[in-house]
Amino acid sequence: MIGKINAAKAALELVKDGMIVGLGSGSTVEIFIEMLAEKVKNGLEVVCVPSSYQSHMLAASLGIKVSDLFTYNELDICVDGADQVDREMNCIKGKGAAMTREKIVAAASRKVVIIVDESKLSEKLNAKVPVEILPFSYKFVLKELERFGKVELRRGTGKLGPVVTDNGNFILDCDFGVIEDAEELETSIKLIPGVVECGILPSKMVDVVIVGSSSGFEIQS
Amino acid sequence: MIGKINAAKAALELVKDGMIVGLGSGSTVEIFIEMLAEKVKNGLEVVCVPSSYQSHMLAASLGIKVSDLFTYNELDICVDGADQVDREMNCIKGKGAAMTREKIVAAASRKVVIIVDESKLSEKLNAKVPVEILPFSYKFVLKELERFGKVELRRGTGKLGPVVTDNGNFILDCDFGVIEDAEELETSIKLIPGVVECGILPSKMVDVVIVGSSSGFEIQS
Repeated sequence: MIGKINAAKAALELVKDGMIVGLGSGSTVEIFIEMLAEKVKNGLEVVCVPSSYQSHMLAASLGIKVSDLFTYNELDICVDGADQVDREMNCIKGKGAAMTREKIVAAASRKVVIIVDESKLSEKLNAKVPVEILPFSYKFVLKELERFGKVELRRGTGKLGPVVTDNGNFILDCDFGVIEDAEELETSIKLIPGVVECGILPSKMVDVVIVGSSSGFEIQS
Repeated sequence: MIGKINAAKAALELVKDGMIVGLGSGSTVEIFIEMLAEKVKNGLEVVCVPSSYQSHMLAASLGIKVSDLFTYNELDICVDGADQVDREMNCIKGKGAAMTREKIVAAASRKVVIIVDESKLSEKLNAKVPVEILPFSYKFVLKELERFGKVELRRGTGKLGPVVTDNGNFILDCDFGVIEDAEELETSIKLIPGVVECGILPSKMVDVVIVGSSSGFEIQS
């Protein structure tokens, strides 16, 4: 927890008056949003574009001005978490099923800041890769992804059957083992008809990784 | 009209007893579905997987057995139309906003048959390319696509505001001029976060093009 807090605190320093700020999703981003709301109460002027109902609801409830990509086609900065980050700043995202909008918000941002604690670091990516798919395409995309590894339709609690994302789609969790070339794998997956987005955030989309620890933080860029 | 009929008739010859048949969408496919329904009445046993509410409703109303990609992960054949076909069998699809499911059905099929009349042929692709996008990503993807050419949000009749697809998304119609490398353009577009599918069907996904004319048909493969 203290690692997440230290990472969020460091990211907050990068947010300046007048900025349009993309908000990722997840527990570390929740901490960041709470800290940001404090600054807003103390006079900081920002407009935020959230990437999930989770972040949207939290930001709105804390009095942060919220907008969207109908109003802005470019954001100044975006702060998001990750499930796993490798040495080269490639990330895996999507444990919270929010990676599609997270990647849109990241791609729309001039500066992408990923905040994680040390537990998320890995020499190479080897966590499960979530893939968002159109329900219509289910068994076809499942078959295609099984060429790369083990694949499972995500189920959760709170509703019967598969998890449905904020975009109305399914999530396939894919165990591809160790990922040697993140960007190549991302491209292969995204070219499959029916795939909406893939949980690999390649390093070319990431500007800064802030790693929080109990003693402070380190910045990679 | 007679060109479309002759193309559909030729495609019908490729459908054999026991096949799982993907159904495209559009006016030429409507003719094909009507002819197929006649054969089914006369004893042909097939199961069809439609790519749109249009095809689904028509097939069901004519007594054709309909299934989906929850039941089948591979289809024997798929018959679909196109807005434009070039010399190398690259196609543009999506005038009817159905290209996402059409491409899923095509990708799931062992044999992809495109039926068109002569008016759809072009030395090179130069028709507008429809791109299906998540509404959430609207102005960002618009900006990204405008790097390649002129882009317009599709509006129609029957509802206020933008057209919403069978998948709940928007369509951006893109004028890219003459397309020199269809596959490369498709990849560039599909890698933009927020893009669900692009109306370019590259020739590697097409097995047969049947071109109907007033005098008969020609087959490219």
